[in-house]
Formats: sequence, C-alpha cells, structure tokens
Amino acid sequence: MTTVAAYAAPAAKAPLERTTIERRPVGEFDVLIDIKFAGICHSDIHQAREGWGEAIFPMVPGHEIAGIVSEVGPGVTKYAVGDRVGVGCLVDSCRECDNCKAGLEQYCTGGGVGTYNAVGKDGEPTYGGYSEKIVVDENYVVRIPDGLSLDVAAPLLCAGITTYSPLRHWNAGPGKKVAILGMGGLGHMGVKIAHALGAEVTVLSQSLRKKEDGLRLGADHYHATSDEQTFQDLKGTFDLILSTVSAPLNLDAFLSLLKTDGAFVNVGAPEEPVKLNLFSVISGRKTLAGSGIGGIRETQEMLDFCAEHGIGAEIELIRADEVNEAYERVLSSDVRFRFVIDNATI
Amino acid sequence: MTTVAAYAAPAAKAPLERTTIERRPVGEFDVLIDIKFAGICHSDIHQAREGWGEAIFPMVPGHEIAGIVSEVGPGVTKYAVGDRVGVGCLVDSCRECDNCKAGLEQYCTGGGVGTYNAVGKDGEPTYGGYSEKIVVDENYVVRIPDGLSLDVAAPLLCAGITTYSPLRHWNAGPGKKVAILGMGGLGHMGVKIAHALGAEVTVLSQSLRKKEDGLRLGADHYHATSDEQTFQDLKGTFDLILSTVSAPLNLDAFLSLLKTDGAFVNVGAPEEPVKLNLFSVISGRKTLAGSGIGGIRETQEMLDFCAEHGIGAEIELIRADEVNEAYERVLSSDVRFRFVIDNATI
Repeated sequence: MTTVAAYAAPAAKAPLERTTIERRPVGEFDVLIDIKFAGICHSDIHQAREGWGEAIFPMVPGHEIAGIVSEVGPGVTKYAVGDRVGVGCLVDSCRECDNCKAGLEQYCTGGGVGTYNAVGKDGEPTYGGYSEKIVVDENYVVRIPDGLSLDVAAPLLCAGITTYSPLRHWNAGPGKKVAILGMGGLGHMGVKIAHALGAEVTVLSQSLRKKEDGLRLGADHYHATSDEQTFQDLKGTFDLILSTVSAPLNLDAFLSLLKTDGAFVNVGAPEEPVKLNLFSVISGRKTLAGSGIGGIRETQEMLDFCAEHGIGAEIELIRADEVNEAYERVLSSDVRFRFVIDNATI
Repeated sequence: MTTVAAYAAPAAKAPLERTTIERRPVGEFDVLIDIKFAGICHSDIHQAREGWGEAIFPMVPGHEIAGIVSEVGPGVTKYAVGDRVGVGCLVDSCRECDNCKAGLEQYCTGGGVGTYNAVGKDGEPTYGGYSEKIVVDENYVVRIPDGLSLDVAAPLLCAGITTYSPLRHWNAGPGKKVAILGMGGLGHMGVKIAHALGAEVTVLSQSLRKKEDGLRLGADHYHATSDEQTFQDLKGTFDLILSTVSAPLNLDAFLSLLKTDGAFVNVGAPEEPVKLNLFSVISGRKTLAGSGIGGIRETQEMLDFCAEHGIGAEIELIRADEVNEAYERVLSSDVRFRFVIDNATI
C-alpha cells in the first residue's frame, strides 16, 4: 500500500479538501502512474453532489488522467517506466461479456469499474485523478502520443472520447452536416474533432458569447438557440446533432433540425427525465440516441487521431486548492473550456 | 366528376354516416379504382375524432384500399382496366424533394398529400377508402399480386407497410431478436413479417390473452408487459423492439430490454408527449426512433414479399353500416386483428 495525497469530497455537497488515500500495491499486471494532470469534468460535480444518485464518500473525483509510468508489475508487457499514459473513466471491466469482447468495455454488462465512485474487484472503493498517484491494470491504460502535451491531453480521456466515439459511430465526415449542441468542455472537443473528421460543423449554443472561439476551433457556423429564428432557419438541416448539454432541452424543437434519417445523440445527461412527442421521431424516421465515453481500444484510436491532427483541449490550468472555485465556475459556464488540475500542487 | 357513395364523419367525434362525395374526372395519369375492400386503421379513429389535431370535415377515412382498375387516363402506362391494385396513406407528393427522389415519399418535405383529411394539388379535400370509387395518380398506386386476396391485402397498405419498412430498415432477419410490442392490427402484421424475415420473434403484449394467436402467426415467445417479471427476465435481450402501441409507455423500462446498440422504434403514436430518462439511451448506446408507413416503391416490395410468403392480414369482414361499432371495438382492443369493410355494402 502507498499513501498518497489527494483532494476529496468528504460527503455529498461538501467542499473538496486535501487528504490522503491508500493506493493498492502494484500487482502483476498493474501500472503505477505519477499523475501530472487531471481534468475537471462536469460529471465530477454531478457525482460529488449526488446528482446522479447515491455515491461513495469520501470521493476523490477525476477521470481525465495524464501522467508518467513510475513502476510496472512483473506481468506488464504494454508499458514501461517513463511512458506517457492516460486513464479515463474505467479502470476495469468483466472482460467476458459480449461488450467487453467487442471492445465496448464502457457498456460492460458483467460489472465495469469506474475510476472513482465505484468498488474495485478487490472490494475497495476506487479513487480518481485528483491525487498524486494511481494504480491501474495495464489493460485500462492508454498511451499518450509524444505529439500531445500531457496537460491538454488529460481532458481527452473523457471529453475527447465522449465526443469522438459518437461522431465516428454516426459517421461524421465529409459531406455530413453536424451540429454540436453546447460549447463547454465536451462541446469544444466535439467541434475540433468533427472538423478534423471533415464534417461541416455548426455550433448551437445558448448565446453567441463564444462564437469567436467556436469559429477559431473549427466550426463553420454558429447559432444561438435562444433565438427562435435559429429553429426556423435550420429546419431539416443536420445529419447529426451531438448534444453535450446536461440541462433539460426542448427535444422536439431540436429533432426538427434533423434531416430524414438524422440522429440526435445525447452525451450530456440531465438529472431529470425529458419530454418528447413521438411524432418528432416518426416524421422523418429520426433517431434519438445516446452514447457513453468509449472503449479502451477506441480511446487509444482517439488519442492517436488527436495527436495526428494536433488536437488538444483548450484548458485553464489551476492549482489543486482552486478546485472548489473551479466547480462553481463550471456550473456557471465560466470556463474556456476545461479546468485541468496541475497535480504537482496537491 | 363522378358522384359516389361513401361513409363520412360529418364533424369531429360525430358517428360516421352514409353520404355521397364527388370524385374528380380521370386525368391523363389517373387511375379510377372500384374499391372492393377498405381496412379500418386506428389512425382513422384518431383523425375522425381530431385526436391528432384539427381535421377536415366531412371526413371519409380509409387508407387501406384494395380494388380493381375500372378506367385509366390516356397517359397511364403502369395499369390497365381489370388490374388488382391498392392505395395506401399517400395519393400524391411533391416528387422533387430529396425524399421523394429517394423513394421516401412518406417523408416528402414539399407537400405530401394524404389519402384523406388532406388537400389535393387541385385544392380539393381528399376522401379515403370508405367509398365506392377513388381516382388516384398511377404513381401512387401499387399492384396487388395474384396470390393475395383483396380482402386480406387491404390492411397491408398501412398496417403491412408500417411494420415492414422499419423491420427492413433496422435489419430484422436471421440471428436477430425482435420484439413486437402490441398485438393489434399493426402488431399482428409485425409478427408475421418479422417471422417471414427470419428473425426470432417475441410478442410483448399487455396480457397473455392473444398468446395462442401470436404463436400461431409466427411468434417464438410471448410475454405479458403487465407482469413485472417480464422486465427482469428479458433485460438486455432484443436487437429491435417495434412498438405498435399508441398508449403512453414507460419507455425507460422498454429501453432496458434492448441489447447494446439496440433500437426501440415507434410506429404507434400516442397523442400526449412521453417521458424519458436520457440515461436509458446513453447506457448501451441505444436508439429511440420512429418510422412512418413507407414509400411507394417499398410498398410494392412489401406486397410482393407478402404474396411470396403467403402473408395477409387476419381480418373480420364487416358491412359498412357496422363501422361505428367497429370503431368502438378497436378502441377496446376487441378485434382479431383488423376490421375490413366490404365496400359492396356501402
């Protein structure tokens, strides 16, 4: 066991504070990672405040982890000391269900293990990236290519893969009109990745406040959803709308912006149920779908794609003791576009 | 103009009564059809009672039409007097939009014309199949193959194509587990067609009342949705659920019955919005979709498929003056499985 410093929420809705946690000994197939940077994801806040249901406390959030391998178990073949690596939302899964076998560990039906707010196969709670070190089975670790700085790579482990996976699955690419709904941590990654995939990219954001940023990051068009005219002008326009917002939406209005056979895909997750008129999908054979992060193999593919296209997250680097303030700023959409903790400050 | 006898609703929610209507002269590309049989679709009732919004009265419902060509215009090339033909939910469309060009006239964005409760290109209201004759442009007429009796073919024009189209679009076939939700006019056609396509078919019905029928028509399994155990037992089972019900559903519960990447497709249309927890689609990358009837080309393909597989609707033939009673029985699910009007009795 190794004692490491961490930032933890001691209870639901309590501020995070510095503490120490125990990391398990490095097992046969384990990698010990010195965490250099950890992104702050909106879902860290949902979970630390029990917005998505009962949670495990104390909680060390953080599933956008970038660091350097500092020790490997005797059975490890994929990584060596000094390697630049990342860990995302999953640190284990059953490895036996159809989804795991298909590389869709994120939909594991036999018991996936979240990076934090979960219980590992050893029966102990898992703790995330707001900490100095983490021990992870090598099969749930990905390699960060040399071309990517670790700080801007960290958010790719959740915000990057969460947008990349559905954009690929629903065939964003040349000739396709793709809208990214929301211009936050996920949304700005969606814009960069959809643009790099060759799609014609439109941002749909509440206001035009971040328009300049959106166009700079690769959007071809930018519209405010607070403007009724947007829904008139863009009726029947998109092949794919990727919704990154976690506020409740007027789904019927957004479905009207799709072409026949278009898809509205949710990666944002409101805490409350949404309302829907089923005629909105019947007319035009439309799809309302969802997608959650991505599998391990696809996460590696995404990192390689991002390195090849020079894509990292747009970040604001913070000290660990600024995390509570950062949470408040995320909740008021006051971040361009992802807070990343410099873990040297923990 | 030709005066023909018909059954019409004089106003919203009023009983249907015998009357006469005018049919337009047979134009250059028109076909005059002596209607032999007309199916009663649940949507006839929705529309006659203005459940789907403001409607045009007097209304002659009926979009499941089977008959014999009795006259053709000089430009008609596809049909001749004596041909056995059908007309479904559409009698015209713009013919120029992307959907029309793709054979998806049902999603015409330039102004599709419904078989009734619509306004034709001549500015006159359209009247449906509860009548002696109808005049239709040959491009919106389909051929009923010799192997199919006209009475059991009539319901194929809506109930048949409405289930065939999504079953084909979402790849129902060998190796696929398909559930048909609801065992009424649409549902029983869904069972027959999904079985003929080679899928493993499960009926999900409120009760086991029609179980024997379901198994006889081709279902491999039959479960009651009023039994909580059904949702325990069938979790993660289906590639595709085709919902034919127009009552509001617990969508989250039904989405839990899908496999990863499974689709829940609505062809039934409740009058009220439904509620949905978006986590139900995010977990397992699931799809909630809709589908409306089918295009003209696909309707012909469906009729040929049904003839080849010996598939007709299960019908109760009624006299035209029994139509109001039949409506009440449809509303109480007391029909096995489709009422068809013998138009000789109008």
